[in-house]
Amino acid sequence: MTATLSQAPLREYTRILGVGAARPDVVVTNEDVCQWIDSSDEWIRQRTGIVTRHRAGKDTSVVDMAEIAAREALAVAGIDASQLGAVIVSTVTSPYATPSAATELCERIGATPAPAFDISAACAGYCYGVAQGDALVKSGAADYVLVVGAEKLSDIIDRHERTISFLLGDGAGAVVIGPSDTPGIGPSVWGSDGSKWGAIGMTHSMIDLRDMAIQAEEEPEGTALVGGSEAKLWPTLRQDGQTVFRWAVWEMAKVAQQALDAAGVTAEDLVAFVPHQANMRIIDEMVKQLKLPPTVAVARDIADSGNTSAASVPLAMHRLLREQPELSGGLALQIGFGAGLVFGAQVVVLP
Amino acid sequence: MTATLSQAPLREYTRILGVGAARPDVVVTNEDVCQWIDSSDEWIRQRTGIVTRHRAGKDTSVVDMAEIAAREALAVAGIDASQLGAVIVSTVTSPYATPSAATELCERIGATPAPAFDISAACAGYCYGVAQGDALVKSGAADYVLVVGAEKLSDIIDRHERTISFLLGDGAGAVVIGPSDTPGIGPSVWGSDGSKWGAIGMTHSMIDLRDMAIQAEEEPEGTALVGGSEAKLWPTLRQDGQTVFRWAVWEMAKVAQQALDAAGVTAEDLVAFVPHQANMRIIDEMVKQLKLPPTVAVARDIADSGNTSAASVPLAMHRLLREQPELSGGLALQIGFGAGLVFGAQVVVLP
Ligand SMILES: CC(C)(COP(=O)(O)OP(=O)(O)OC[C@H]1O[C@@H](n2cnc3c(N)ncnc32)[C@H](O)[C@@H]1OP(=O)(O)O)[C@@H](O)C(=O)NCCC(=O)NCCS
Ligand SMILES: CC(C)(COP(=O)(O)OP(=O)(O)OC[C@H]1O[C@@H](n2cnc3c(N)ncnc32)[C@H](O)[C@@H]1OP(=O)(O)O)[C@@H](O)C(=O)NCCC(=O)NCCS
Repeated sequence: MTATLSQAPLREYTRILGVGAARPDVVVTNEDVCQWIDSSDEWIRQRTGIVTRHRAGKDTSVVDMAEIAAREALAVAGIDASQLGAVIVSTVTSPYATPSAATELCERIGATPAPAFDISAACAGYCYGVAQGDALVKSGAADYVLVVGAEKLSDIIDRHERTISFLLGDGAGAVVIGPSDTPGIGPSVWGSDGSKWGAIGMTHSMIDLRDMAIQAEEEPEGTALVGGSEAKLWPTLRQDGQTVFRWAVWEMAKVAQQALDAAGVTAEDLVAFVPHQANMRIIDEMVKQLKLPPTVAVARDIADSGNTSAASVPLAMHRLLREQPELSGGLALQIGFGAGLVFGAQVVVLP
Repeated sequence: MTATLSQAPLREYTRILGVGAARPDVVVTNEDVCQWIDSSDEWIRQRTGIVTRHRAGKDTSVVDMAEIAAREALAVAGIDASQLGAVIVSTVTSPYATPSAATELCERIGATPAPAFDISAACAGYCYGVAQGDALVKSGAADYVLVVGAEKLSDIIDRHERTISFLLGDGAGAVVIGPSDTPGIGPSVWGSDGSKWGAIGMTHSMIDLRDMAIQAEEEPEGTALVGGSEAKLWPTLRQDGQTVFRWAVWEMAKVAQQALDAAGVTAEDLVAFVPHQANMRIIDEMVKQLKLPPTVAVARDIADSGNTSAASVPLAMHRLLREQPELSGGLALQIGFGAGLVFGAQVVVLP
């Protein structure tokens, strides 16, 4: 006769307790960008809404930015790092295959021995992290969960290319999720479409780079890595902008509506819409398709920060709450989407 | 007055429904290894218990191995890929910064549009994934979750180094987690110790490699990447074996005991122990410290497969169930630990 396994008690409700942000110092203007690509300030503003993006200097790492955002989120939440039951860092720009950025962050903020891991879900990474944080708290696996989106995208762009480099910024955003007496996070509507795996991604793989590097070592007189090589050695991001644009406008408005339906609320119940900051025109189009009333505040951090991938939604929420603190306690619809393709949306009570 | 957010119904219990495995074709013997490092078959057998390890050929990717393991786990579980509510791939060897390996796997097996993401938690990655899969099913965020540990570690080793290369193999293991009428997964005892971040890791960062590559491009006549360079260009794994060994033997036996205590069972209730396959001596020492009775079957896949990081625990479980199918339905203690440092353990009902 098999013994019965004890179970942690389940919890009914969770909520976001605090949000934090890190925007690195270096401000890159559209004029700066136009040194490297054939474009104009006017084109970039009209087609994307971006005016500046922040980028981290050589000595600022993904974990440095994650730490600033995490400390602020914990302070606002009134939670000590020692109370964390998990530390999740969503990033695609940690420069080490292993260990994770999360273990370093966990140690720096004093959350050791909490479990710590990175997730790879591109621009949906923060919403994916919220889905997991919510589940971990509800299942009793953790009391409080830190979810950080942190990216140093400047490390994986080629400044001279025109499909995506000018859109991207660096930064980190963080939230703390914990138990609640009332529902604070609606059901996650999240998913993927790997048939569009190639729509956003890297020029080539790290293994291609390795093979070139090994060839250079083995043939010291060879030219594998030097002069005349057509391939840029370092893999950088590219996208098929129109494919992504169309997918975002058509499919993501549906996902956002599904998140409202799953939470049993309507656009009229919202005080805010906090979409992924990919393109101001995508944001405007979603607002239109969702028929958001003018009373719903729309987060538009993109003008200042560009697209910061996994950091974009919490950064946008952070700015919105700083500019309109009265929104706190109201319902917000948040949605992230990006390379994979992947998407995630939830209705949440604003911290 | 704020509208109330609907919630997905919670679930009491989950279990592992099936396990699958992929062991790539190339068998690397200790004799093979001794061509590249100053060692011997006898030393490797005595100090690690390893006789062979499997490695993937050039044309076999992390996702190729993950797919084989995933398809078998789904078939054994009797679950169609379309029923999956999440696809989690634990890996540190996906060669693209983005998109994730999971989105490609998800599409290949026909699980689109399920959410799909990679996690980075090294050799604890499978147990971390089980903790998340368990939480997602209990919280109602997913009905069934596929958790895959998949690694092509041969891509990030330097065959000529002596601290870790000879231990490592490639492979993938997968489980499907779903709802259960009785408790099938005990509480996860999981955590990290980032103060030992440096005990296992990469020689240098990808950014160091990039900077060398850029220098080579900018100075075609320079010698940054060619001849005379002391640094090997491609980052590879290193470890402080003794630090890891001591930590594994002392701390991990405690974690394993905590997992038993949290589940409310004792060593006598177990039919099997499925530890991370890092070193046969670590396994033996844990068996001793946990005072496991001789009736408990101990998974010792390491002799054949070496250390396959995130794939190691499900591969070991897969072999055990193939050799002793009568263990199915009994309680097993599983534990993973590795770079971070990170660890995770659960008592589970064997599928
Ligand atoms: C990238 C993006 C801004 C391009 O805008 P667009 O309106 O689709 O532009 P198109 O690709 O249709 O090109 C229109 C014209 O602008 C030009 N153009 C393209 N990129 C340009 C740039 N960076 N600067 C100036 N001109 C540019 C094209 O050459 C084309 O010129 P033509 O009409 O003379 O042939 C837009 O597609 C986008 O935002 N897509 C979604 C991106 C996204 O969200 N990605 C990340 C998801 S996480
Ligand atoms: C790596 C490991 C097998 C080394 O075994 P060890 O018994 O600790 O070996 P030591 O480092 O103490 O070295 C003992 C001797 O073996 C030698 N040695 C070290 N590596 C060797 C190798 N690969 N082959 C042959 N001899 C070796 C040393 O030079 C030393 O020689 P000396 O006594 O003449 O000075 C062991 O430390 C280990 O398994 N650690 C944990 C690894 C692990 O689990 N890592 C991954 C976690 S996920």
